Amino acid sequence: MTTLTPTLSLACELIRRPSVTPVDEGCQALMMQRLEAAGFALEPMRIEDVDNFWARRGNDGPVLCFAGHTDVVPTGPVEAWQQGPFDATIDSDGMLRGRGAADMKGSLASMIVAVERFVADYPDHKGAIAFLITSDEEGPALHGTRAVVERLRARGERLDWCIVGEPSSTNLLGDVVKNGRRGSLNGKLTIRGKQGHVAYPHLARNPIHLAAAALAELAAESWDAGNAFFPPTTFQISNLNAGTGANNVIPGELQALFNFRFSTESTEEGLKQRVEAILDKHELDWHIDWALSGLPFITEPGELLDAISSSVQMITGRTPEASTSGGTSDGRFIATLGTQVVEVGPVNATIHQVNERVLASDLDLLTDVYYQTLVRLLA
Amino acid sequence: MTTLTPTLSLACELIRRPSVTPVDEGCQALMMQRLEAAGFALEPMRIEDVDNFWARRGNDGPVLCFAGHTDVVPTGPVEAWQQGPFDATIDSDGMLRGRGAADMKGSLASMIVAVERFVADYPDHKGAIAFLITSDEEGPALHGTRAVVERLRARGERLDWCIVGEPSSTNLLGDVVKNGRRGSLNGKLTIRGKQGHVAYPHLARNPIHLAAAALAELAAESWDAGNAFFPPTTFQISNLNAGTGANNVIPGELQALFNFRFSTESTEEGLKQRVEAILDKHELDWHIDWALSGLPFITEPGELLDAISSSVQMITGRTPEASTSGGTSDGRFIATLGTQVVEVGPVNATIHQVNERVLASDLDLLTDVYYQTLVRLLA
Repeated sequence: MTTLTPTLSLACELIRRPSVTPVDEGCQALMMQRLEAAGFALEPMRIEDVDNFWARRGNDGPVLCFAGHTDVVPTGPVEAWQQGPFDATIDSDGMLRGRGAADMKGSLASMIVAVERFVADYPDHKGAIAFLITSDEEGPALHGTRAVVERLRARGERLDWCIVGEPSSTNLLGDVVKNGRRGSLNGKLTIRGKQGHVAYPHLARNPIHLAAAALAELAAESWDAGNAFFPPTTFQISNLNAGTGANNVIPGELQALFNFRFSTESTEEGLKQRVEAILDKHELDWHIDWALSGLPFITEPGELLDAISSSVQMITGRTPEASTSGGTSDGRFIATLGTQVVEVGPVNATIHQVNERVLASDLDLLTDVYYQTLVRLLA
Repeated sequence: MTTLTPTLSLACELIRRPSVTPVDEGCQALMMQRLEAAGFALEPMRIEDVDNFWARRGNDGPVLCFAGHTDVVPTGPVEAWQQGPFDATIDSDGMLRGRGAADMKGSLASMIVAVERFVADYPDHKGAIAFLITSDEEGPALHGTRAVVERLRARGERLDWCIVGEPSSTNLLGDVVKNGRRGSLNGKLTIRGKQGHVAYPHLARNPIHLAAAALAELAAESWDAGNAFFPPTTFQISNLNAGTGANNVIPGELQALFNFRFSTESTEEGLKQRVEAILDKHELDWHIDWALSGLPFITEPGELLDAISSSVQMITGRTPEASTSGGTSDGRFIATLGTQVVEVGPVNATIHQVNERVLASDLDLLTDVYYQTLVRLLA
């Protein structure tokens, strides 16, 4: 039996704890034990049914925070896995297999080991190192990072830079880092008509017929052209429903769910006004329940992105592409503190799937990337 | 207690039989007994689970057929009725109340009594009188009039004129007679796209977005301008559904149910081709399951319509409007025999509702209208 590296050994220990969201199953206790031994002050923050913790080492000066989550998505059908989803095995191809291997217990292990090495090498480092860890990133995300950030904001905690361990890489470790995310805005649209019989359409107002041209215009609209950091804002209707089931009844209303993924070229208010103007132009009797899922954020080139890029370049020989594509992450909450936030993690090809896996050696490289970033910012 | 007129007495006897479709509950036996006494040859035609009968009196020459149904729609909530739905009472306002009073046991009673009087007054009338009665007009209508018509067609039975007892009147007895009905054509449309995640719309094809402009064009299309007998053809989408329920998934397909009510200015094939051309123009991946519910038919001014109009004028003082509006009726099946078909019956304001009712004296007038029509055509 091969001896595992410190990073892989810790990654396996974390994967073997079946912490399906929002359960933590002792992952955070294990991390806190290691951080306490490295000189961190610990602050567990259980909020409602969610385990979170904040940890900090150092004094004044810039603060570099590592952020991540110990919860994982459900396994899906266990029989579809090559081995148990919580077995944490390394196969003959060198792949570390298990739920959370890529998203994101591998990154958590790399963070811990990188920080342990850094504080051993630079016990009197500049500024401070922090950890913000939650067990509710894959679930409703109400009592996780968002709630912890509000506590930090309330007491004026300083966060200059944040590295989120989300699996940002596409094909090879470090090929992509995420320096921002699009905003996400949901709408539930109701178009009211008047119910009636299809044989007497003059006595009814068909909301499907009334809405069709407006929906076509919304679908064809160009919302913005994006910018250097963001692709153009997109609009998608995910659900559209009208009708009683009977084929001789004109329905009384139509409902649609839609979503914007938006760049920093658009604002929440601006998008709302433009949608509502199109509906008004078509003289519709409409109502929208709006729900903002997250504002866009961007970390422009600067100290953090430079440190990460040069570290990736040094360890992997690659220059990472900075991207804002993909879904949302907890980075959007942390960015509201004025923090530079970048996501740097392993390859995301198998996340949320059965047989989730990551190249084991990539996690050791990721440890080195985190270490070099610490050196560049705080040594 | 007031003595009821023969028409009202028979109408009450029929209403007291709770013949909810497709059950007949002895209504037809009662009608056949009366017709046999009036010299009719009877031919019961039970087809599958549906009672029908055909009856005929007379020999060569033109045939005037009375057509109708003994089944009624369900009562709906019984507690919402002023009295039992099958009690058949006449209230202080002179309204005959009960399920079927208007649709169409009142008409059946008027037909029987009118024919009894006519054969008593004109025992050697010209041509022949017939009855085509079903107990499946309010249900699937597969084994009722349609099936009887096919038997009559197969043996070359002659039907020159047909009076259907459907409640054709709008406000006052005889204000409207129906001299035709629009056609009805149903379509179930599927638009195929490609499922995906709303955050990655470039990897999906949203069938809602793809379909919207085509649906708007279909809704705005002018199909024909109608003619002297028909209003313009109408198109209505009754049901529209797409989506998985999740608000972050672009659905793979969209389904719509739609219906044409069409005049004799359009054809089934023509409408199909025009819908399909619009879908093709928008380059959609589409499929339609078509179902023809009925072709349009029209009885142009002539012997039957003249006889009915002058009879209504004589009895009520009103000149009836000939209309093709409203839903479908069994008249569409009978018209395929080349028969002139007109619907003449009481006011339809309360049909299919709780507290269905009809002005009792209208049924006596209706008996007179039927009698006078018999006189004009066969005396």
